[in-house]
Amino acid sequence: MIHSHVLLAHGSGGRLTHDLIHDLFRSYFCSPLLAKGDDAAVWPANLPPEARLALTTDSYVVQPLFFPGGDIGTLAVCGTVNDLAMVGARPLYLSAGFILEEGLPLAQLERVVASMARSASEAGVHIVTGDTKVVDRGSADQVFINTTGVGVVSAGIDLSGANAMAGDRVLLSGPIGQHGLAIMTQREGLQFSLPLESDCAPLNGLVDAMLKAAPTIHCMRDPTRGGLATTLNEIAAQSQVGIEIEESRVPVPEGVRAACELLGLDPLYVANEGKLVAIVPPEMEDTVLDAMRRHRYGREAALIGGVCATHPGRVVLQTSLGAHRVLDMLSGAQLPRIC
Amino acid sequence: MIHSHVLLAHGSGGRLTHDLIHDLFRSYFCSPLLAKGDDAAVWPANLPPEARLALTTDSYVVQPLFFPGGDIGTLAVCGTVNDLAMVGARPLYLSAGFILEEGLPLAQLERVVASMARSASEAGVHIVTGDTKVVDRGSADQVFINTTGVGVVSAGIDLSGANAMAGDRVLLSGPIGQHGLAIMTQREGLQFSLPLESDCAPLNGLVDAMLKAAPTIHCMRDPTRGGLATTLNEIAAQSQVGIEIEESRVPVPEGVRAACELLGLDPLYVANEGKLVAIVPPEMEDTVLDAMRRHRYGREAALIGGVCATHPGRVVLQTSLGAHRVLDMLSGAQLPRIC
Repeated sequence: MIHSHVLLAHGSGGRLTHDLIHDLFRSYFCSPLLAKGDDAAVWPANLPPEARLALTTDSYVVQPLFFPGGDIGTLAVCGTVNDLAMVGARPLYLSAGFILEEGLPLAQLERVVASMARSASEAGVHIVTGDTKVVDRGSADQVFINTTGVGVVSAGIDLSGANAMAGDRVLLSGPIGQHGLAIMTQREGLQFSLPLESDCAPLNGLVDAMLKAAPTIHCMRDPTRGGLATTLNEIAAQSQVGIEIEESRVPVPEGVRAACELLGLDPLYVANEGKLVAIVPPEMEDTVLDAMRRHRYGREAALIGGVCATHPGRVVLQTSLGAHRVLDMLSGAQLPRIC
Repeated sequence: MIHSHVLLAHGSGGRLTHDLIHDLFRSYFCSPLLAKGDDAAVWPANLPPEARLALTTDSYVVQPLFFPGGDIGTLAVCGTVNDLAMVGARPLYLSAGFILEEGLPLAQLERVVASMARSASEAGVHIVTGDTKVVDRGSADQVFINTTGVGVVSAGIDLSGANAMAGDRVLLSGPIGQHGLAIMTQREGLQFSLPLESDCAPLNGLVDAMLKAAPTIHCMRDPTRGGLATTLNEIAAQSQVGIEIEESRVPVPEGVRAACELLGLDPLYVANEGKLVAIVPPEMEDTVLDAMRRHRYGREAALIGGVCATHPGRVVLQTSLGAHRVLDMLSGAQLPRIC
């Protein structure tokens, strides 16, 4: 590429747009579907008769673009892959839409695109169609990315936030708070003695292992924006059940706990990008926990609570001291532009 | 909604995000899939055995948000529906990702969302999953929208920019230049005696009628960014054929011609949002033109030229005076933020 920075003409649809697609996107997102260059990617469906399709979208506006444990590119692929995985869908294909600020160094864009390609490869998903827009300097902040994913849900799988039932167990795949704190400390230039890294990871492999072990899991959700507390509230509301969590069972890394205390944050509301909550029938608890702990992204999986018929729509936390308090959904904005 | 403007907390994933989804998006995008509230929309595939799936994405950053003939909302739905239609796909579902600038009046967002709902209804497509991010004031320009569409291509349809063959006819669905000029005059506060309105429209109905009449059409593409000249260059390059166009056959409205002369623009490079180019086998020319002219969005369809074996990869314009000149792809940025 002969230019070092993004120009308005890179978004004009003309020569420079074509050069950018050819030199950058196609060379990292190697897919014959993308290479075809038509207005949409087309592929033979070849679905089993009972299969369902899934569609999910997320835009990524995280600041800073690069942070310990990942960048906007890893996030853009993992976040959307995870949203597909949470409904039990095997991710097939992603689209990628870039909004670039005029003047963005092309080397930074290349670093982001390389991260996307790496995460897509880990998740086993292909980026097959895309779009690039350029806005004038000051009309966007460096780069925003939208990824949208299509996946296939196999027959017999039925995951929904509306499926939680009294008696179910609440499992968490690992320690919370890392992503949000990694962004926060990077943004504010803080230094802690314990390193804080984003947990950003594609969870479709973990979900696949869990569903193979127990296809009757009721619900999965990744506690991203709004954190674990907000995710549990969403499920309690959708299923009209109560959820009770034991504070002492929720794994919080020492570094996250220390940073949260200093910053006045509650780890239960801090975003994660590589964790999931699973609501499972009581008889499947051990089977699912075993399957989770055998996977690299579920090694520290834990039972953190249960679903009850009392206080429908409410999440109650039993504190380490034995007191009970209602855990509400996040109100206000804890950490803007976390993903 | 109790707030009049977008707050950072509307993008936090917490209470205000849920209120926005509930009060605004779900009330306009009425779909049981969206209402379910899971991380992805899931639907039974129910595809015929030979069917193919199509995926396409576009981000919309047009300025101003509202212009004669449409707004960013109509554009966001029509543009993506049209990209699906251009590969012969029947649009099924769209996703919608919003990036909002803190301080955007919610009334403006509502107007945009209402336009999206109206265009989706005209196109017969449903918006089934979405995402909202809010960035701090000055980090984006009002609102950016990404829409991504999934469609189904029926057996026997094979449209691609790589399918043009020597001897094929080049058809255009109607007059060019309206969208680009409508944006330009609105942005610059210009007044012309002849009104300029965007041609923004969903073309899937027109495409459907054309493919019913002639399933063997080789290629369709909508001449958006970069205009007719750039689109023809893309096809010539993908198919490695020459394309020859007669200037006198290309319909240009009087208002567009006058405004272009004044502004020093070439209508062949100005963006359209409701037009298509079709490359058809010579024996199908009349059948396809008839089908186009019977549809409201193809009434002024015209034969504008043909495909040849000489000068592969090149587009040549025969001017009204009988001279020939090479029509290159757009270089540079004619009108930034046109869509």
